[in-house]
Amino acid sequence: MSPVIAFVGLGHMGAPMAANLVKAGYRVVGHDLVPDAVDAAVAAGVEAAPSAVAAAADADIVLTMLPAGRHVRALYQDAGLLAAARPGTLFVDCSTIDVADARAAHQAAVAAGHLAVDAPVSGGVMGAEAGTLTFMVGGDEAAFARAEPLLAAMGKKAVHCGAAGAGQAAKICNNMILGVSMIAVSEAFVLGESLGLSHQALYDVASTASGQCWALSVNCPVPGPVPGSPANRDYRPGFAAPLMAKDLGLAANAVRAGGVDAELGLRAAALYAAFAEGAGAGEDFSGIVRAIRERSGQQPADHHQAADDQQPLDDQKDQPS
Amino acid sequence: MSPVIAFVGLGHMGAPMAANLVKAGYRVVGHDLVPDAVDAAVAAGVEAAPSAVAAAADADIVLTMLPAGRHVRALYQDAGLLAAARPGTLFVDCSTIDVADARAAHQAAVAAGHLAVDAPVSGGVMGAEAGTLTFMVGGDEAAFARAEPLLAAMGKKAVHCGAAGAGQAAKICNNMILGVSMIAVSEAFVLGESLGLSHQALYDVASTASGQCWALSVNCPVPGPVPGSPANRDYRPGFAAPLMAKDLGLAANAVRAGGVDAELGLRAAALYAAFAEGAGAGEDFSGIVRAIRERSGQQPADHHQAADDQQPLDDQKDQPS
Repeated sequence: MSPVIAFVGLGHMGAPMAANLVKAGYRVVGHDLVPDAVDAAVAAGVEAAPSAVAAAADADIVLTMLPAGRHVRALYQDAGLLAAARPGTLFVDCSTIDVADARAAHQAAVAAGHLAVDAPVSGGVMGAEAGTLTFMVGGDEAAFARAEPLLAAMGKKAVHCGAAGAGQAAKICNNMILGVSMIAVSEAFVLGESLGLSHQALYDVASTASGQCWALSVNCPVPGPVPGSPANRDYRPGFAAPLMAKDLGLAANAVRAGGVDAELGLRAAALYAAFAEGAGAGEDFSGIVRAIRERSGQQPADHHQAADDQQPLDDQKDQPS
Repeated sequence: MSPVIAFVGLGHMGAPMAANLVKAGYRVVGHDLVPDAVDAAVAAGVEAAPSAVAAAADADIVLTMLPAGRHVRALYQDAGLLAAARPGTLFVDCSTIDVADARAAHQAAVAAGHLAVDAPVSGGVMGAEAGTLTFMVGGDEAAFARAEPLLAAMGKKAVHCGAAGAGQAAKICNNMILGVSMIAVSEAFVLGESLGLSHQALYDVASTASGQCWALSVNCPVPGPVPGSPANRDYRPGFAAPLMAKDLGLAANAVRAGGVDAELGLRAAALYAAFAEGAGAGEDFSGIVRAIRERSGQQPADHHQAADDQQPLDDQKDQPS
């Protein structure tokens, strides 16, 4: 008999994930503080529970998809989710939260006689809808094994990264690399513009050389070289800048807590935080190239002109210096 | 009839490049200030010229491979190379130098009635010996077309990046991305260590996700995940840290000259400069992970232990914080 799933947090990510569990044949009992979110989930086949505790009481697996660590801990402990659940319930937290919070939540779940994994995702709303998320999972082998079929119904890959908290750790480490490398690529494009180097020429060199990275080859921050990248639709996300700012904020917390000398990671966190509060509020994180260009006093480049531009570089000496 | 090549600068890079030209059937007349370098080149079939000017006087193509822009400009102008060469000689500068110096050298060559390209390389000494260099070329179409067969004899690829200076621009932009992304990857590994995340787990996640980059997938700065990376031979280069420091110094010059807001690029330049003057003097640039780990107050990780370590993270709370 298929396990019963309590699903708490039916937002932009949670709703399509819960819907995919229903499609896979699970009985899903859901809860969200926002009534409209519950209504939408019910339309997709989720049963509405009067509260998160009520949902958890009859479930075999409790899945949470919440904004921050404080929500997970409040729900697990203060709201009484761990106490209400039958001993041996599997708690799967798919939220992206502080590593320290993930560990504390895990510990509390185990102390209450349950199993637990942290299983943050990558792939965004589109991946949640398409069922192609990647899960980075922390927890012991038994908990991971029990979570796997559930994760397979919502995603295309689940990587067991180690013990409790390792899923969160892997996610913030990956996103720290991503955030920094996107700024590096953006700085290089703006430097290239100042030197009269076309976007296409830099792309052609770097994407087949040692500058190759996902930020360049897949999510290229200037329009032209990679037709599918957000830059070609005026930086509509994609991976929204506020989410990158959130993830790098979590990375910065871990950097400071561990006394790690991650100077570029910290600077990137500050740069995305500022960008997300300003022009980047509704943009893909790769839009940070425009902030860098603006601070450099350069005009927006017309990529078609730039790509065809074979003027001698000396014609460009009237650029800002 | 095959053109006669004057080759000035027969060092670690120049010597094997000249030897490959000889193998391809070119008559190569070489010069270097270091007698031993000349002797070695002669043993490889290069004819020794009494001076750079004498070599250039009878050549169809003058190729230079020198440490810095001042050497190229001094040779072209003060030493009289441009004046000594027959009008219409092609000047190919393979040195990695300042974009501004490259433009000035190009202008001087053209003013003297010659053709010129800047054609810095990537691939290092091993690429020079194997004839597998990549050339990034700046200059007009006619000059590029004339240089192409020559470059094909020394490398596997020549990318025409645009007008004069564009080859240098592409190289420093690529290497700025590379230098920053290597630090990002290194910071992420050290952060992961502080969180009890194994090197292998982070590699498995990031190399197949949005953190993927050449610095991780090919030149992985920790031993284990990528067997061929310099980390597995105690950071023997590879791409030596002092060369990365030199290239990022050139990038920083261009950043400042152009008023570009490339904050991470400038910080990376400073970090590699310090590393290259200290522990990194004889190391691959990826050795910077050890400097970051040391500044973080962490012990060197035993990657085999780390990879197998599935201890609960809470057991690691006695790590430095």
